[in-house]
Amino acid sequence: MLTAPQFTSFNPPRRILMGPGPSDVYPQVLAAQAKPTIGHLDPLFIGMMDELKQLLQYAFQTTNPMTIAVSAPGSAGMETCFVNLVEPGEKVIVCRNGVFGERMRQNVERCGGVAVCVDNAWGEPVSPEQVEDTLKQHPDARFLAFVHAETSTGALSDAKALCALATQYDCISIVDAVTSLGGVELRVDEWGIDAIYSGSQKCLSCVPGLSPVSFSEKAVAKIQQRKRPVQSWFLDQSLVMAYWSGQGKRSYHHTAPVNSLYALHEALRLLATEGLEHAWQRHRAMHQLLAKGLTSLGLEFVVAEPYRLPQLNSVYIPAGADDVRLRSTLLNEYNLEIGAGLGELSGRAWRLGLMGYGARRENVALCIQALSEQLASS
Amino acid sequence: MLTAPQFTSFNPPRRILMGPGPSDVYPQVLAAQAKPTIGHLDPLFIGMMDELKQLLQYAFQTTNPMTIAVSAPGSAGMETCFVNLVEPGEKVIVCRNGVFGERMRQNVERCGGVAVCVDNAWGEPVSPEQVEDTLKQHPDARFLAFVHAETSTGALSDAKALCALATQYDCISIVDAVTSLGGVELRVDEWGIDAIYSGSQKCLSCVPGLSPVSFSEKAVAKIQQRKRPVQSWFLDQSLVMAYWSGQGKRSYHHTAPVNSLYALHEALRLLATEGLEHAWQRHRAMHQLLAKGLTSLGLEFVVAEPYRLPQLNSVYIPAGADDVRLRSTLLNEYNLEIGAGLGELSGRAWRLGLMGYGARRENVALCIQALSEQLASS
Repeated sequence: MLTAPQFTSFNPPRRILMGPGPSDVYPQVLAAQAKPTIGHLDPLFIGMMDELKQLLQYAFQTTNPMTIAVSAPGSAGMETCFVNLVEPGEKVIVCRNGVFGERMRQNVERCGGVAVCVDNAWGEPVSPEQVEDTLKQHPDARFLAFVHAETSTGALSDAKALCALATQYDCISIVDAVTSLGGVELRVDEWGIDAIYSGSQKCLSCVPGLSPVSFSEKAVAKIQQRKRPVQSWFLDQSLVMAYWSGQGKRSYHHTAPVNSLYALHEALRLLATEGLEHAWQRHRAMHQLLAKGLTSLGLEFVVAEPYRLPQLNSVYIPAGADDVRLRSTLLNEYNLEIGAGLGELSGRAWRLGLMGYGARRENVALCIQALSEQLASS
Repeated sequence: MLTAPQFTSFNPPRRILMGPGPSDVYPQVLAAQAKPTIGHLDPLFIGMMDELKQLLQYAFQTTNPMTIAVSAPGSAGMETCFVNLVEPGEKVIVCRNGVFGERMRQNVERCGGVAVCVDNAWGEPVSPEQVEDTLKQHPDARFLAFVHAETSTGALSDAKALCALATQYDCISIVDAVTSLGGVELRVDEWGIDAIYSGSQKCLSCVPGLSPVSFSEKAVAKIQQRKRPVQSWFLDQSLVMAYWSGQGKRSYHHTAPVNSLYALHEALRLLATEGLEHAWQRHRAMHQLLAKGLTSLGLEFVVAEPYRLPQLNSVYIPAGADDVRLRSTLLNEYNLEIGAGLGELSGRAWRLGLMGYGARRENVALCIQALSEQLASS
């Protein structure tokens, strides 16, 4: 026998999470998660799932029946959209203005699809003009895929305009709303979004590990017309829906992540209690407060003012500041986590999140104070 | 705006979970999960992940460096093994003696592999003789895949003998240990298992949603020699390992399910404290107690005595008993969940789980008492 390692229980400190996610989790959500596990086919659990579906529909502003939480993180939600919709040889216009657009391209190619990329610089939004030109050049494109809120840069793209183009050019839209859901205006039905995915750990302030998704009637029809099975058994929505469907008997697909779903139910319930529009407004207000403080410290935003995400503030690291040491000091001395730059912005920018429960005055105040003290001493 | 639904917080009752999983979760594990969320790149979290890896290696009895928890349930663990290992056109011998062998076949085909099935009746173990015959008939087979503990029937197969055959015929073994890990003897290195996956919600008594996996050197070499990328971005182990590797800087792949990993750390810590062999022995002892009671009630096991899983007891539903009504009465009046039959055994058998923290005297006593009362009145 290999010897048993002996460790003590893990006791994490209470951090203030102002990075790109996970965000500060509501105390009520942590408590919900610790409630007793019950069976995933228990009638009481099924009742909770029915409520959860309605709460997800509210958060997405949709009446799509195919609205569920994928039992895995946001990147599995992304993959759920691509593997269910895209068949080999089909063409997808993919907009890239950061890490996650590029990840979409990789997903398209792993499904055997053909990706046509529309590129914008990191920090810029997706250009509807470039997208329209590309749609004109590729009349055989079946999909338009883009990121609503680029977590790697903090840029907001015009999802409403892009989805209108998708409809106009007879494409199915696939939208990454990982960082946008609950933080900025997002209206799935009104904007004609066909497939959308998000994450539990950003502006919903739930624990990480779940990915809300929704598919329109048009997207469902495309899935139903598939010529070959979805390459992923785990993410195959025709199988998953037999469990989530809510009509009659639920059939077993996989064991639902029971306690994480308790947490998501509670987080969405808190969002519904606050009201979506109020949550959007709160993110905006806290961003303005933070932006004022950052500007007063001489920090410059990566993204131009009209396209800034309130929930994800990217600022250039000032000359003379030691990126790694400063972030480490904030973490160890202030219990404050801010995000490093990713990809092209690695070592060049910080990402300051104000997501969900984290978008609070005290967090803004602490962040400005900590940066002020540490930049002065660097 | 669509109107916000107003629901109260979900308050699940405290059930006794004696179905096929999720099992009763250790109170310490529920408490661990409710600890504050910290960042997935926080040095303290990385330290916890390093311990978690050692605890997983102990539970699997392996020194495989590629030993991690997939951020999704057991069926994603299954898919992780197949999509990373099997390339289009490669032949896989798949043993089917219940639901999960058939699911393996579907996974093989969705990867473009060629499945050759070895069938045994539901309730029987996989036959090493039939497997050897099939290996002889298919010298071009690259993999042997089987389920160690069939959750749909309660049959235990001889993983040691089957893996020896895989080695002898130069195949890579892929083993489903969803229900076996922590409940019965399992020795990954000693038995020469190449790829194995499990679930958090069975004999580990953790919350559902994670899938421990481990790959041998031989399996890793096969993955490294792939000619084309893994079809799943989310489950691509070459990408995932850049986060779990522990050497130097961890690079971001997806946001780890932080709180669920706290829970798994605690569940595995409790297993290491008890000791694997003690846990195996406890499952055995509780099974004997339960079997005695079931037999005294006149209930008959689906599986012949030598192949019975201690942690999953399938018994035929006696004539005259109303399956649905009885399970519903146990749930509502005793807060006791037992499992329905699945697939071929649907409506014909019950599945009584004694998994992890659930394998306790009081659970056995309650189960026998409840069945005794309800069968007498039916």
